[in-house]
Parts: sequence; structure tokens; C-alpha cells
Amino acid sequence: MGGDHGPSELVPGVARAALTLTGEVRFLLHGEEAALMREIRRCPILVGRVDVRHADRVVAMDEKPAQALRRGKGTSMWGAVEAVKTGEAGVAISAGNTGALMAISKLILRMGADLDRPPLVATLPNDKGVTTFLDVGANVDCDAARLVEFAILGEAFHRAAHGVAKPTVGLLNVGSEEMKGHQEVREAHRILREGGLDLEYRGFVEGDDLTRGVVDVIVTDGFTGNVALKTAEGAVRFIRHELKAALTGSVLARLGALLASGGLRRFRDRLSTPPAAPLLGLNGLVLKCHGGASGRDFAQAVTAAADLARSDFAAEIERNMRKLPAAMAESVPPAAEGAS
Amino acid sequence: MGGDHGPSELVPGVARAALTLTGEVRFLLHGEEAALMREIRRCPILVGRVDVRHADRVVAMDEKPAQALRRGKGTSMWGAVEAVKTGEAGVAISAGNTGALMAISKLILRMGADLDRPPLVATLPNDKGVTTFLDVGANVDCDAARLVEFAILGEAFHRAAHGVAKPTVGLLNVGSEEMKGHQEVREAHRILREGGLDLEYRGFVEGDDLTRGVVDVIVTDGFTGNVALKTAEGAVRFIRHELKAALTGSVLARLGALLASGGLRRFRDRLSTPPAAPLLGLNGLVLKCHGGASGRDFAQAVTAAADLARSDFAAEIERNMRKLPAAMAESVPPAAEGAS
Repeated sequence: MGGDHGPSELVPGVARAALTLTGEVRFLLHGEEAALMREIRRCPILVGRVDVRHADRVVAMDEKPAQALRRGKGTSMWGAVEAVKTGEAGVAISAGNTGALMAISKLILRMGADLDRPPLVATLPNDKGVTTFLDVGANVDCDAARLVEFAILGEAFHRAAHGVAKPTVGLLNVGSEEMKGHQEVREAHRILREGGLDLEYRGFVEGDDLTRGVVDVIVTDGFTGNVALKTAEGAVRFIRHELKAALTGSVLARLGALLASGGLRRFRDRLSTPPAAPLLGLNGLVLKCHGGASGRDFAQAVTAAADLARSDFAAEIERNMRKLPAAMAESVPPAAEGAS
Repeated sequence: MGGDHGPSELVPGVARAALTLTGEVRFLLHGEEAALMREIRRCPILVGRVDVRHADRVVAMDEKPAQALRRGKGTSMWGAVEAVKTGEAGVAISAGNTGALMAISKLILRMGADLDRPPLVATLPNDKGVTTFLDVGANVDCDAARLVEFAILGEAFHRAAHGVAKPTVGLLNVGSEEMKGHQEVREAHRILREGGLDLEYRGFVEGDDLTRGVVDVIVTDGFTGNVALKTAEGAVRFIRHELKAALTGSVLARLGALLASGGLRRFRDRLSTPPAAPLLGLNGLVLKCHGGASGRDFAQAVTAAADLARSDFAAEIERNMRKLPAAMAESVPPAAEGAS
């Protein structure tokens, strides 16, 4: 029921995903039955592959998380997350209110890791493929243990989502030397390097490595990650705007843009962010699809969710999380050194 | 003597700047006399406007700051900064070793503000003009007072460098609401809003505002600022690369790129960073020009330095810095609130 468009885009999105997913993948649609059935009837491929779970109410897009928690029971969002808890669904996906989805998911599924809340994950294009980048905003204050947990979560996610057998991991810093950065980042570096976790840890990376592809997964705190992601988005917006101005400035430039339009379209596709991101660290899989998602975007998100649900994702995370206390005990704090 | 090219690019750069600067601006060139004189003789406009200060030695581009401090006396860099201290020069400019320039400047000129080291300033293009962004890497750990000092320094710099009478200032955060962010950023927000400083403070801004131009000056700690700047640089590099690939993909796209080349060149110029940045917070003006600077870049840097030296920059900073202790005492700490 969520997102800017509701069932009229999302149900056709499910239908589009059903085209490429094998018959073993089935769908539970939570929401107002009449509205859902109207859309389902228009999509013959869904017949026999969807069940509708009626919900009287929906969480509004502008509802505060605390309010959504209080009056969330009986909403379509609550029902979707609850189905993961009961095991009826392998993964929940919503294009609705992000804060509410996070709060409801935490309440129903509980955090597996020792985190306040699920880190937000971004996927950025790089020279060789994509970078998994976290946390981009959920946990503003992070100690070393939180950063190591992000590494474990992000690594498992990257493998499940992108089929990379052994993703490489880097820790975001202001330089690659050992003594650079603040205390938290240097301590996390030590645990990742010496703690015996099952991770391909490659050390410190810098902001420009996000789009360079030197590692698959880049870890940082939610403050730095949020600023970096929004800075990158702002740079992309600014450059598109400038480029458009440059290519419509003269008759020749306009003609040039017209001739180059195929290449420019592929260029734009490459820069666009993927439609969905997982809420990591919960005892169960939940994906957030962006609110403005079209049917096509939602189909991509549903396919990604199905891939994740069929992977060994959760078990891999649990294995590494169990090693974390020993890893932290083993790594010996170094003498204090000046930052930067 | 510094930079990748030395006097063969830098002296013609000074000559180029001399063309646009009035005769009242004179130049002291520090370095090996014979090498400098050879270049000066090729630039008639410099005759009568330059003095050469011979230095036997130069600081190497890869020298460690500590080493440069120990054996710095007698180098061209040391002489240039010393001339600011004695009042012989209004401003020093170097394309040499950044770390060494910072260390030598701190030792000779001392910090005026209560900072460990001069914040690094970046200038980014935005929709309406340019954004002054600091600290982009010098001070990794920053308390609230440091952030407020950056606001004072950045505001005065923006006015002097860009002729904006009353630059607006924003504090980088993960959202614009009062309770967002970590403690340091929320306390700095309070001091800036309530402390009676002579600043047009506009509150919290986010990463994408760096290229949007909602405020003239954006303040953050050296960790976040370094990551954000490098992320933006990485995004620009990646996009240029992708765009080039898109525009050379087919014969039509290549033809399109050729037709649009004028617009694309202006587009690229707009994205390039300015060649020089000031070391702020010293008792005296020092500019760092990037090492790869061409003569044309160095001319721009010299012109910017002359503008800065003739402005009321230092006095304005001092006035606001004197208000800081009272501003900090006046702002009342709020009750603790959850981050993000």
C-alpha cells in the first residue's frame, strides 16, 4: 500500500518480478483487499502466485515512527513484517514510511547484532561494479565494535546481493596510514585486522574510493556515511544540471546532445541508485524500496529481495557475529597516537 | 621553487598575475637566485616589480613535516613565511609540500585561534556560485568550540575571497532538525545561534547542500569534511569517465561529443577546483597552491592572494574570535536528546 503510487504501481511491479522469478517464489500482498484485488486482476501472471492479507489501515508516509509503533498493529506494514517473524514470509518489502518500517521491524523482529538500529546501506556504482556502503544514516555515534558489526553485515549482504564469493572490505578514513583518523576508526581497524574474523579486510580507504572499486564494501559511522552519500548525490545532481545546460547552450550543442542521446541515457542509468536497500542486523529480512518507486523499480526490488531470501545471508552473519567478542578481546590497544 | 614544475611555470604565473594586478602589488620571489633570474628575464613585465630573496635549499615535496621543521631554516619556503612574520610581505604563497608549509607556518606565525592546526578550506561550485567548505582534513577531532572557530574563519575568508558582504553560514549535519546529529554539532549549533557572534548563521545543512548554494560557508570537522570532499572529487572523476565512455561509444555519439565540445569544455571548467586554498587561523596570511599548478593556475592563486592581503580579513576574524568565550558561556546546554 506504501510509496507515492500505492498498489497501482506496486502490484504491476510484483507481476513484472514474477515473470523472471521461478514458480517457487510466491507473494503475500498486505493491504486493502479490494484495492489489491482490482490490480491483481489486471495481471494474469499473478493468479495462483499471490495471497492477499487484508489490512484495514496503512501507515501514512508522514507518520512519526513513535506514532506508527503505537497504532501500527493492524496496518499493512505491520502485517508484512509480522509474516517474516512467523516464518510465513522469507523477506518483507515496503515502499512506505522508512522510519516507521525501521521502528516496526525492530519491535517485531528485534536486532540480532548489538546495534541501536539497522544500519542503512547504499549501493554506489564504481569503475568495476558496485560498492556497498554503510551506515548511511541510522547510527550517528559509533564505537569500534559497531563499525566491525557493519563490516560483518555489509560483507554478507554484498555476497548475497551481488554473488561475489568473498567480498573485500575497507574502513573509511582520511588517509591510508595506520595512525590516521580518530580513535574509533583506528580501533576498528585493529579488530578487523587482528581479530580472526572471516572477512577479506583490506584496511583504510578514502572518500574517492567509493566510486573507484578498490574494495566491495566500505564501512563508516552513520554521520560520515550520511554526509558522504548526500554529498555524492548532490555532486551527481549538480553535474547533471550543468551538463544539461552545457548541452542546450547553442544549436550545435543541442544537435550534439541529440546525436549522443543513446550514450547519455546509458550514462544516466549507470548513475541512478538501486531502488531498494535492506535493513540489516534484524532477526529476519526486511527491504525498504524508495517511496517514488515505479512498477519497474519495484520489480527490481522484489527480485533483489527474493535473491537475498534464498541466500545463506543470515547464517553467515550469525557465524561472524559470534566471533566478535573474542576478536575484540584479542586485539591489543596500541599506545595513543596523534590524529591525522 | 615548489610544485611539480618549479620556477619554469611559477615565474610566468607571477608575470601573468602582474598583468591584472595594479603596480602597488609587488612580489618577493624566494629561491635559488640563478634559476629565478633566468625565468624573470623572460618576463619583461616583472622588471622593477620583483625582488629575489636567495635561498640555498628547498623543502622536498616528499619531506615529512617534522623533518622540514628541523632543517627548514634557510629554505625558500621558510623565507617566504618569515617575510609575512616580519611584515615585509602581506601574504605568502607556495606550491610546495603541504604538510611542511603547514608546520613551518604554525611555527613561525603561530595560531591565532585556539586550534591545533589551520583548517583546510575547499571551494566547491554550486548552483549560484561557490561554497566555502572547511575543515577538509587538518583537524580530525573537533569539539563544539573548534566548529564555531571554523565558522568565524570561513565566513571572513568567503567575504575576502568572493566579495560577498555578509556570507551565510551552515553547519553540516545528517538532517536539519534541532535534535539531529552528535553532541558536538548540536552544541556548536546552539553557540552559533545564541552566542551573539557577528555571523549570518542559517542552521544545519546536509551533504547535498554543498553543491546547492543554500549557504555560502559550510562548516564541519576535518574527518567528515575530508571524506565529503574526496567523495565529491571521486564522483566527479567517475562521472567524467562514464561520460567520456558514453560519448565515444558509437560514431553518432562521437559526432555528438564533437558538436557539443564548447559546452562540454565550459562544463569541465566549472567543475575544476580553484588552484589555491588559505591556511586559516594563523597570525598572518599563507596560501597553498596545488603542486601540479600550471602558470595559469599559479596566476589565479597569486591574484586571489593579493585580494586577500588587501582585505580586512584578519581584523574581522579577530573581532569575532574575541566574542567566542562569552558566546560559549551564554549558550545554555539543553537536556540530552537521542541522536538522529
